[in-house]
Amino acid sequence: MADTPKTPLLDRVTTPADMKQLSDDQLIQLAHELRAETIAAVSETGGHLGAGLGVVELTVALHAVFDAPRDKIIWDVSHQAYPHKILTGRRDRIRTIRQEGGLSGFTKRSESPYDCFGAGHSSTSISAALGFAVARDLGGDGENGDAIAVIGDGAMSAGMAFEALNNAGHLGKRLIVVLNDNEMSIAPPTGAMSTYLSKLYAEAPFQDLKAAAKGAVSLLPGPFREGAKRARDVLKTMAVGNTLFEDFGFSYVGPIDGHDLPHLLPVLRTVKARADGPILLHVVTKKGKGYAPAEDAADRGHARAKFNVLTGEQSKAPSNAPSYTKVFAKELTRIAAEDSRICAVTAAMPDGTGLDLMAERYPSRVFDVGIAEQHGVTFAAGLAAGGMKPFCAMYSTFLQRGYDQVVHDVAIQRLPVRFAIDRAGLVGADGATHAGAFDIAFMANLPGMVVMAAADEAELKHMVATAAAHDDGPIAFRYPRGEGSGVEMPERGEVLEIGKGRMIREGARVAILSFGTRLSEVEAACDRLGAEGITPTVADARFAKPLDEELILGLARDHEALITIEEGSVGGFGSHVAQLLSDHGVFDDGLKFRSMVLPDTFIDHASPAAMYEAAGLDAAQIEAKVRQVLDKA
Amino acid sequence: MADTPKTPLLDRVTTPADMKQLSDDQLIQLAHELRAETIAAVSETGGHLGAGLGVVELTVALHAVFDAPRDKIIWDVSHQAYPHKILTGRRDRIRTIRQEGGLSGFTKRSESPYDCFGAGHSSTSISAALGFAVARDLGGDGENGDAIAVIGDGAMSAGMAFEALNNAGHLGKRLIVVLNDNEMSIAPPTGAMSTYLSKLYAEAPFQDLKAAAKGAVSLLPGPFREGAKRARDVLKTMAVGNTLFEDFGFSYVGPIDGHDLPHLLPVLRTVKARADGPILLHVVTKKGKGYAPAEDAADRGHARAKFNVLTGEQSKAPSNAPSYTKVFAKELTRIAAEDSRICAVTAAMPDGTGLDLMAERYPSRVFDVGIAEQHGVTFAAGLAAGGMKPFCAMYSTFLQRGYDQVVHDVAIQRLPVRFAIDRAGLVGADGATHAGAFDIAFMANLPGMVVMAAADEAELKHMVATAAAHDDGPIAFRYPRGEGSGVEMPERGEVLEIGKGRMIREGARVAILSFGTRLSEVEAACDRLGAEGITPTVADARFAKPLDEELILGLARDHEALITIEEGSVGGFGSHVAQLLSDHGVFDDGLKFRSMVLPDTFIDHASPAAMYEAAGLDAAQIEAKVRQVLDKA
Repeated sequence: MADTPKTPLLDRVTTPADMKQLSDDQLIQLAHELRAETIAAVSETGGHLGAGLGVVELTVALHAVFDAPRDKIIWDVSHQAYPHKILTGRRDRIRTIRQEGGLSGFTKRSESPYDCFGAGHSSTSISAALGFAVARDLGGDGENGDAIAVIGDGAMSAGMAFEALNNAGHLGKRLIVVLNDNEMSIAPPTGAMSTYLSKLYAEAPFQDLKAAAKGAVSLLPGPFREGAKRARDVLKTMAVGNTLFEDFGFSYVGPIDGHDLPHLLPVLRTVKARADGPILLHVVTKKGKGYAPAEDAADRGHARAKFNVLTGEQSKAPSNAPSYTKVFAKELTRIAAEDSRICAVTAAMPDGTGLDLMAERYPSRVFDVGIAEQHGVTFAAGLAAGGMKPFCAMYSTFLQRGYDQVVHDVAIQRLPVRFAIDRAGLVGADGATHAGAFDIAFMANLPGMVVMAAADEAELKHMVATAAAHDDGPIAFRYPRGEGSGVEMPERGEVLEIGKGRMIREGARVAILSFGTRLSEVEAACDRLGAEGITPTVADARFAKPLDEELILGLARDHEALITIEEGSVGGFGSHVAQLLSDHGVFDDGLKFRSMVLPDTFIDHASPAAMYEAAGLDAAQIEAKVRQVLDKA
Repeated sequence: MADTPKTPLLDRVTTPADMKQLSDDQLIQLAHELRAETIAAVSETGGHLGAGLGVVELTVALHAVFDAPRDKIIWDVSHQAYPHKILTGRRDRIRTIRQEGGLSGFTKRSESPYDCFGAGHSSTSISAALGFAVARDLGGDGENGDAIAVIGDGAMSAGMAFEALNNAGHLGKRLIVVLNDNEMSIAPPTGAMSTYLSKLYAEAPFQDLKAAAKGAVSLLPGPFREGAKRARDVLKTMAVGNTLFEDFGFSYVGPIDGHDLPHLLPVLRTVKARADGPILLHVVTKKGKGYAPAEDAADRGHARAKFNVLTGEQSKAPSNAPSYTKVFAKELTRIAAEDSRICAVTAAMPDGTGLDLMAERYPSRVFDVGIAEQHGVTFAAGLAAGGMKPFCAMYSTFLQRGYDQVVHDVAIQRLPVRFAIDRAGLVGADGATHAGAFDIAFMANLPGMVVMAAADEAELKHMVATAAAHDDGPIAFRYPRGEGSGVEMPERGEVLEIGKGRMIREGARVAILSFGTRLSEVEAACDRLGAEGITPTVADARFAKPLDEELILGLARDHEALITIEEGSVGGFGSHVAQLLSDHGVFDDGLKFRSMVLPDTFIDHASPAAMYEAAGLDAAQIEAKVRQVLDKA
């Protein structure tokens, strides 16, 4: 636990309006205090650290110059918004961040009027800002504010950001895009765009605008006038030739040092006073800035458990079992050693998906395509068509970005792309934007797709091997965030028979058919019920598609009740089972069928266990469901 | 019916291998014949015309210079691939195109080894080609061919293409991208990229490379050598400054005249001989080239019904009822007149979605964002957050491109974006790539989303009005391609009560609950059954979400059997009904529940009626289903 830093100026700022009285020198002091407070808070709670530290000065400058919430400041991804939250009325709750009932780790419309557009996924901010700008010009909400997107260089490399630039350049509306270029998104970004941006500032090192800018401002009786013009003339000369942003119809300003407030403030004031169309302000910052343990880390302090402020040392709970991610990556790497056609695609998540492990051994067979799920999926389809055996490893929630490509390029063509769907189900502190709730539904209704879910980490190992061996069409397997349950691990994954489940325990009257890692909760529920002589049959479906018809129809035939359970929404596994049962007329003569799925709400961040309790999918509620169907007997 | 053109050279070409013996002058003649054959064939069958005519010379040049199928030529979207099909062993079937059992209107892997990657949706070709290139370099299929993507300027403006360029520039593999720039995709493209490309060739008019190129080639004893170097030097000087393609790590060649074979052939030969990384060849063509009625049309002959070759006049069947698209557009335009906050977003489909109608009246409130569904959805979310009432009009199949944005930016934030989902269900000649099969499933499982389907064109009118009035969250309504059933149309749409269905006819024993336009087939089936005294109850659900629980539970209570039917896959309406019934224990005591959904296959192109017959969803099969459940009584 850190000492609370002394923050006399910050203590006087409850909302950005309180910053309007501060001098530029005081704003510099405010930034120092804000940085200290951010570090202190995250040291107590854990969370995203590096990105916020990188934009402390930018946050101060934006809120000093613009007038939120009338002006719409949209933080891309928004894991860098902790300093913004501190300055916008939420300092008193900043130590609840990412905890149950506390502040979200991202911007969230329902949390504050200063969070005008929520995020979590990347590269949405320019589209949203353009929507605000157009709505403003059409008189939408009757306000007249600016729309400002703050987007990182990693996020800028996504196709969606490009689409938005393309459209914004065409429409020509007043719109401010701040490109926060730190040469890091989560991992160091790859791709030609990144190289291009580096070149922009390699060719034009920061210019000494301080004097000019200060001069400009000091001349002003009101906020702007003659001096602003001079600052603007200087800014104009800074642009490097014709940037691609200018090719797209944006005015380009930069690159400027994003940690230099005497530089940043007058530039933003000039932009505010003078922008008459889309403008891109290229700001260079350092992720983790001002906190040595973050600056020195490979990930620049991207996300942190609670830590010691002085040393940066994190206090992580000891791990009892390997994470699912690591089990996947190790087994894939093992298979890659035996089969040179195995390769893997990640969209900017080499660490998150574990593929960095495989890349260490087989760098030429692991492809980080950047934040580009659409391309990543079709690239994998091309690899498969060219005779390779690609694994496309994405989080469930991000695979939504490549859905059309899964349908159009993979499923329709029956190409053997293997989808490793990580972070399936509820994910904990990242909350609703990162929940992997829909993939069973949106994958299992695709003709020819095989869909598996791992019940534990040993099962995952088998499924990786099964996917590698499956060569006549696409296959997907899902597994959750976090650690396995500590089961004994086989030496190597075993190739499962496609469409075959397994019996876990034979019982009577009620059968529970589990798909995924709820199996351990099912077993816990059955253990408790067993003490009272209630002994449900339990099976692990393994496959949502193709279903194990023999197993399922047999369970239905031999029991009064059949309960399915999965970590996904309606429309998925339980719905496929219901379709099978109705096709076979099983309901005609009565079957107590129940399908336990995620409820029809987005579930706020909390621990995964608390989220599953809220979802009605824990052992107690499975037990209650069994009792309920038996009581009706 | 056209006279068959005289095609002496084309008659000798069965596969591209037959072109290798032809002189450049003969290739010019071959292109003339290929154009005539393309026009004659499409005049008999209807189909995509303009795009194919624009690439006749390019197709000849690519097949003359490269060696398909070893070299992988990937046609983006692939509606321009008719000339390619004629040259690759399918001339004898070209007059079956887009017809049941005939050739696909797009490239299709299962149709020919020359179709190395199928398409239908845009902007996938660079990703796929990069996959082939990387697979080649990793030894995937043991072949050593080139990977060539041919992509239009409209398709190039999509984010996915940008993602692929970004990744390809980074990887640096030998890869050929032919940018076929005709300043038209389907509609004239909008967006800054389009302006940029125009500028590229405005600044550098075609250069007279003919002499140089001819010289280069004539010097060669083998296909290439010293001469190629000279041609390459000339090519190098053609690049306009530093294009954005070069910024991205591509070599840029162009712009060159894509109809000028003496120009195109040596350039392609040089590219083939010398490319040592990613190269972009910028070719300028004219959509509809060489056929005056196409060149003169606003859409450059994009898609045509059968037509008279001499006059270009199309023979369209007389229409009895307005198209669903037009009903949507007219009602929206009417409401827009009354409410200035109504606005609309289309992704490059102003004509296809009917929004061009609204744009005529309210140009400032209709936004064509280009082929950019990701951006389009989030832009609409921004408009809604800014106080507007946006309609986001997209085809079901293309909405898949914006799925994550629907989840993350619209549904989680409960923003009132109205999704007008056109081309829902099976679409006919465009086949599987364009089927709208999955939207009920992927929309109805999103918390807070309202999902409607129109049973006929009057219902659609009500649903447009309902969506306009629904302001406390997102709402979607789906409707099919084609004409309505000719029902009487109300003056104006009526706002429906959310989550309420309607009874169509009261009967006994069996209840049929329809969602969407299968209702007319249900009624036809019931009319036939009625003659035998079998009188099912029929209801129109209107809503897949929220479900009309009272209606559905009542139908279940009062009938032996309940049959749902929809134009969508499993996981959709029927699955939601099954979930409701199981939650309420309705199955416990027996209910003959059947859910009629699209089968678990991708259905090939044919007439919509034939496709629905193949899908098991026509009147005869509804009748059979009713008999089957009753026989079991």
